[in-house]
Amino acid sequence: MKISELSERSGVPVATVKFYIREGMLPRGETVSATRAEYDEGHLARLRVIAALTGVRGLPLARVRDILALIDAPTGDPVEILGRAVGALPPYVDELRGDHPLARAAIAELGLTYDADFTAVAQLEEALRALEAAGLDASPAALRRYGDAMLQVASAELALLPGMRLDEAVTYAVLGTALYEPVMLALRRLAHHHLLVARPPASTDPEEKRRNLSQKP
Amino acid sequence: MKISELSERSGVPVATVKFYIREGMLPRGETVSATRAEYDEGHLARLRVIAALTGVRGLPLARVRDILALIDAPTGDPVEILGRAVGALPPYVDELRGDHPLARAAIAELGLTYDADFTAVAQLEEALRALEAAGLDASPAALRRYGDAMLQVASAELALLPGMRLDEAVTYAVLGTALYEPVMLALRRLAHHHLLVARPPASTDPEEKRRNLSQKP
Repeated sequence: MKISELSERSGVPVATVKFYIREGMLPRGETVSATRAEYDEGHLARLRVIAALTGVRGLPLARVRDILALIDAPTGDPVEILGRAVGALPPYVDELRGDHPLARAAIAELGLTYDADFTAVAQLEEALRALEAAGLDASPAALRRYGDAMLQVASAELALLPGMRLDEAVTYAVLGTALYEPVMLALRRLAHHHLLVARPPASTDPEEKRRNLSQKP
Repeated sequence: MKISELSERSGVPVATVKFYIREGMLPRGETVSATRAEYDEGHLARLRVIAALTGVRGLPLARVRDILALIDAPTGDPVEILGRAVGALPPYVDELRGDHPLARAAIAELGLTYDADFTAVAQLEEALRALEAAGLDASPAALRRYGDAMLQVASAELALLPGMRLDEAVTYAVLGTALYEPVMLALRRLAHHHLLVARPPASTDPEEKRRNLSQKP
């Protein structure tokens, strides 16, 4: 297809497509004449991935480039791939090295693995510090509400990996880390809404209050 | 305490403290002389909340102001409070009204409540569109991995509300929506890491491979 069709089908302006090509984020089209290049479904798929990462995730371009580089040159070590993918996602933490006392205690309590070099440890430290600063409960019991659910989610996600080819598995791990997060957060918000709407409201009708009181033994 | 001590204990520069006061996000101190105002623990707590929301959440100032307004003037309707809190959090969606076909189908499948006016519906629509654009699985089975876990998390969170005063409940609902999200995401990343590190690696040692093969029946 021509660049104009590629632009139309992806929803990405022609100038932006050309920018991504110059930046090495999108391969050049195949030159068919001095003034025309031909693009294929692979170009379209790549543009849609870029749009997904810059769109709903709102990632800065430099981080999108990091994620694309991981997909383009898959290595065989899943722990390293995960570490690099997580490092490309917010929250971006300044002090990667050093001690992370709140995260270390939480990770021990939840039975997870503490590895100070894995970016999510520093991200958890920041998140727990923010909870404490705001006066919210960061106790082991509070964290267990999330830890157990996340272990269950992560197990279900990783169960799919063994059936995949290496390049598929890397794409799934990298894009899945980035793109299932907004889904999960939206679903938590919807679950709150659902539970609040579905539960019987505290009555403000005096007549009904009287009836409820009179039913007390 | 003096403004200098307030700044030191909160980690927020004096100029920024003054800015928050001018913007109405932080109450003025009590005037004790022509050149001095006195601040208390309430000022410190408020500054820490602002720092938590701008820090780990990286929220724009206008959104932080929306969240503070919710805490300062709690209304009795939890669904409305949740709706306004969620509207102050990313992803910021343009088209709130209108149809959300992917989200509607997913919500029906998961047994949640569809309310097109609740911002998380539009947020889920965007998130699902990004999944599809990137070629990731957005089928009901894939979404159930997240939906069931989020319903479990939300139930545990809401179970705490009945024991709280109205202002406590509003603060918990509003700040909790914002500040437990980064904790949950960090824990999902840590759970992936833990499961990858803990599982037996595919062997690359030829000698071991041979042994494994010879053990086959």
